[in-house]
Amino acid sequence: MSNLKIQKLNIKIERSIAIINAKTLAKLSIQPSANVKIKSLNSEIMCEVMSTDDLIEPGFIGLTEGQIKDLQSKVDKKVKVYTRRRPASIEFIKQKQAGKIWSESQLRSIVSDITFGQYTDMEISMFTLAQYYKGLNMDEVQFLTQSMVEFGATLDFGEPVYDKHSIGGIPGNKISLVIVPTVAAAGLLIPKTSSRAITSPSGTADTMEVLCEVNFSSDEMLEIAPKVRGMLVWGCKLDLSPLDDIVIHRVEQPLGIDPHSQMLASIFSKKVCTGVDHMVLDIPTGAGSKMPTRESAIQYAHESTELGRRLGIHIEAALSYGEQPLGKAVGPALEAKEALEVLLGKGPTSVFEKSNELTGILFEMAGLAQAGQGSSLAADFILKGKAQAKMEQILEAQGGNPKVTPEDIEIGQYTADIQAPKDGYIVKLSNVGIKKVAYAAGCPNHKKAGIYLHKKGGDFCKKDETLMTIYSDSESRLTEAVNLAVNLSPYILEGMIIKRISSGTKV
Amino acid sequence: MSNLKIQKLNIKIERSIAIINAKTLAKLSIQPSANVKIKSLNSEIMCEVMSTDDLIEPGFIGLTEGQIKDLQSKVDKKVKVYTRRRPASIEFIKQKQAGKIWSESQLRSIVSDITFGQYTDMEISMFTLAQYYKGLNMDEVQFLTQSMVEFGATLDFGEPVYDKHSIGGIPGNKISLVIVPTVAAAGLLIPKTSSRAITSPSGTADTMEVLCEVNFSSDEMLEIAPKVRGMLVWGCKLDLSPLDDIVIHRVEQPLGIDPHSQMLASIFSKKVCTGVDHMVLDIPTGAGSKMPTRESAIQYAHESTELGRRLGIHIEAALSYGEQPLGKAVGPALEAKEALEVLLGKGPTSVFEKSNELTGILFEMAGLAQAGQGSSLAADFILKGKAQAKMEQILEAQGGNPKVTPEDIEIGQYTADIQAPKDGYIVKLSNVGIKKVAYAAGCPNHKKAGIYLHKKGGDFCKKDETLMTIYSDSESRLTEAVNLAVNLSPYILEGMIIKRISSGTKV
Repeated sequence: MSNLKIQKLNIKIERSIAIINAKTLAKLSIQPSANVKIKSLNSEIMCEVMSTDDLIEPGFIGLTEGQIKDLQSKVDKKVKVYTRRRPASIEFIKQKQAGKIWSESQLRSIVSDITFGQYTDMEISMFTLAQYYKGLNMDEVQFLTQSMVEFGATLDFGEPVYDKHSIGGIPGNKISLVIVPTVAAAGLLIPKTSSRAITSPSGTADTMEVLCEVNFSSDEMLEIAPKVRGMLVWGCKLDLSPLDDIVIHRVEQPLGIDPHSQMLASIFSKKVCTGVDHMVLDIPTGAGSKMPTRESAIQYAHESTELGRRLGIHIEAALSYGEQPLGKAVGPALEAKEALEVLLGKGPTSVFEKSNELTGILFEMAGLAQAGQGSSLAADFILKGKAQAKMEQILEAQGGNPKVTPEDIEIGQYTADIQAPKDGYIVKLSNVGIKKVAYAAGCPNHKKAGIYLHKKGGDFCKKDETLMTIYSDSESRLTEAVNLAVNLSPYILEGMIIKRISSGTKV
Repeated sequence: MSNLKIQKLNIKIERSIAIINAKTLAKLSIQPSANVKIKSLNSEIMCEVMSTDDLIEPGFIGLTEGQIKDLQSKVDKKVKVYTRRRPASIEFIKQKQAGKIWSESQLRSIVSDITFGQYTDMEISMFTLAQYYKGLNMDEVQFLTQSMVEFGATLDFGEPVYDKHSIGGIPGNKISLVIVPTVAAAGLLIPKTSSRAITSPSGTADTMEVLCEVNFSSDEMLEIAPKVRGMLVWGCKLDLSPLDDIVIHRVEQPLGIDPHSQMLASIFSKKVCTGVDHMVLDIPTGAGSKMPTRESAIQYAHESTELGRRLGIHIEAALSYGEQPLGKAVGPALEAKEALEVLLGKGPTSVFEKSNELTGILFEMAGLAQAGQGSSLAADFILKGKAQAKMEQILEAQGGNPKVTPEDIEIGQYTADIQAPKDGYIVKLSNVGIKKVAYAAGCPNHKKAGIYLHKKGGDFCKKDETLMTIYSDSESRLTEAVNLAVNLSPYILEGMIIKRISSGTKV
């Protein structure tokens, strides 16, 4: 009696769970909470078993709609249930304890097993944490990347592909929405895939989604991008690196970690899959960024260019100032608005300058500009309205409103201003503090939530002048964000810390 | 509307899960799969949220019977649901990546948060894997142990307590069932707590449970043990080290790991909690055991005695031969049977000798025997029937049949013999191979499953002579165990490996 009839469960949960009657489980000698394999005629999935006395009748198995689809089966069809054996590749992971260097074939079987759903979440965490605690050498990172490419989809555009990548970590880094149209305006192909927020209040995909669709299939990208020359797409839908999506979703986000080797493999596997030939790599550097010291940033740049060399991607890395948020807007809607302003020649200088510097490097790599001349050419494309015109084409091609203006963008109706507690220069504006306040306000899930930074590091402000405005679409989240802003003090004014210590005054 | 009414779910799963209607979740801004805190008037629990459209009505929360009990609440009573904040102590765990040494207060807050249910399973795995991949120093192990003691129950017998502990790892190590009655027969107090199988086919608690109850409360132990002088109890019920039970259950068993520092803290926290003053520590050593080299075993002995010194426990460590299973019986029922035989002066010499050596060390520590004379005194206690008489008292006190004989013990009705493929001396009998075959036969959950080893390392056997008999209470499990035995060849006969390579012959 290992044949069970499928019954549909109207339950949604990320974890894969099957509900089976306790009597059936006893007959099958399966323990509640065991991990089992469910096999249909054409497919199989792994589940954790929940035992019930009455929700599901004996002989049936309760599965969610998504699981039934993954099994390519239907309600009332039969499936077989097996106790799952722990995949052999887990033994390779354990060897990392003793400092074992993983071979190409070992990494290949680990990646294959995770990709094909053979690992539990906790086993995936054992792999990710092996990287986190022990680190990988360059050979291992290369093999990991190549295995991830092997088990993912690939896109072949048949012509040189350009790309910009930022390692992230600082809030407000909306420059892809400026760089992609500028690069595309010059005729270069830049079909950029990006992620949703992992460690910032808004990922490029979250921000772009305020303006248009970001979910495209590989076929759609292959059709649209060569014509329009540029796209900004959420990478996940393309299945470029299934392992990466699994690891990010099921381990890295829940634990709040991003191991160096996995980060490299994540970035580069997607680049190889989308056929990237030339790439500029933005490495925000400094206290509060992912690369707190210049040395760590330089080492990262060397590793990346070396990994690029091994994988056939020409890379120029650029260290950028990463000690405070970029520009003035933080959060999906606010950032989309600011990007549109920059394309209109308005908006903060820091966003305009950084975008043009990075675009300029791509122009120089493509031979469109002499060394050192790329960024002024990029500025030209913006100031002459060419980048803005290209953005309209991109928005139209991605199902958005091409005529959208910055003023059209809706932002949270609940707002609160945070004022300066005293006169003084701003000596620090903390990435971490701004991120936490933005999360509390609702970022990245609530697109209208965010922060507008009226003042940045180095600015002078007078007592009671507004430092930042917090936006939210929920009054309670706004209150929480304001409380957090008061507690965390993301702005530090000259002399402020000393005063806090001696008198207990808080911002 | 954060007040939800409790509805009972007839579901059993180890993981803590709450089912809430999708509409209610949307109102509360809680994502499916989020970790939430559920608060009743007097208690709180952490759950993972499952979203449903119809299983649970809006405004209700589906919880299991166990969860409702943990909340000290009832069906139709109201509870509050909050999005859970990640505990601050997780940041300490992350610092292990950079080699940070945990302070006493950091370990205390990690242990407290895990004990009080603040961590997800994956976060617990991050802690356990930090130990696994990075290791702890002796100060950290001491602080970890002391924190575990602080958040656990303690037993105070008001007199010197003796104990025997084996680090485990080899199958068939049933000696506690011989040592405890022998030590108690001499009048020493030995209220031994033990675990169920972690890495062997039968833990001492599993084996003892074949003969009597092993679930006792602290109060019952405090009442019974001083009178009978010895007990063999499953430690889990006593809540001596809640953290340890959580870590073993939710991380170590699922991942099949047992980090050195956690193993030390696990053992010693329970010893401190039960007031142990004098302990003999059995360290099986050699290929296929937990201590594959003599150096590793000696280092472990030094660490343990040092940790004992810091915690006020007098320890003598004894390295024992651990390259093959101990005695002839493997599996709960077969091991219980063999232990009873040894107490009757029958049974394998290896079990008799090893038990007496370890008992003898305790006798010497207690001043009951001169140095070097302890083991012959222990043998005396067995040969004169005193240990057997004490075992009868223990079985009676623990609700078993005091007059049970080895022949009374029921073992699996499905059996299969594995024969020698050729004449020759047995040069190896693999712990790992025997364990895997025993698991396949049903150990430790199916108590009648197991293996009887007719031949041991060094024995000579003739072609087709029976090497071992596999027992199971299920025909299909027996078949699986036999197949595994054929594939794994736990017995290696002199010359056998060479023949296998050249001709492809299999056992």
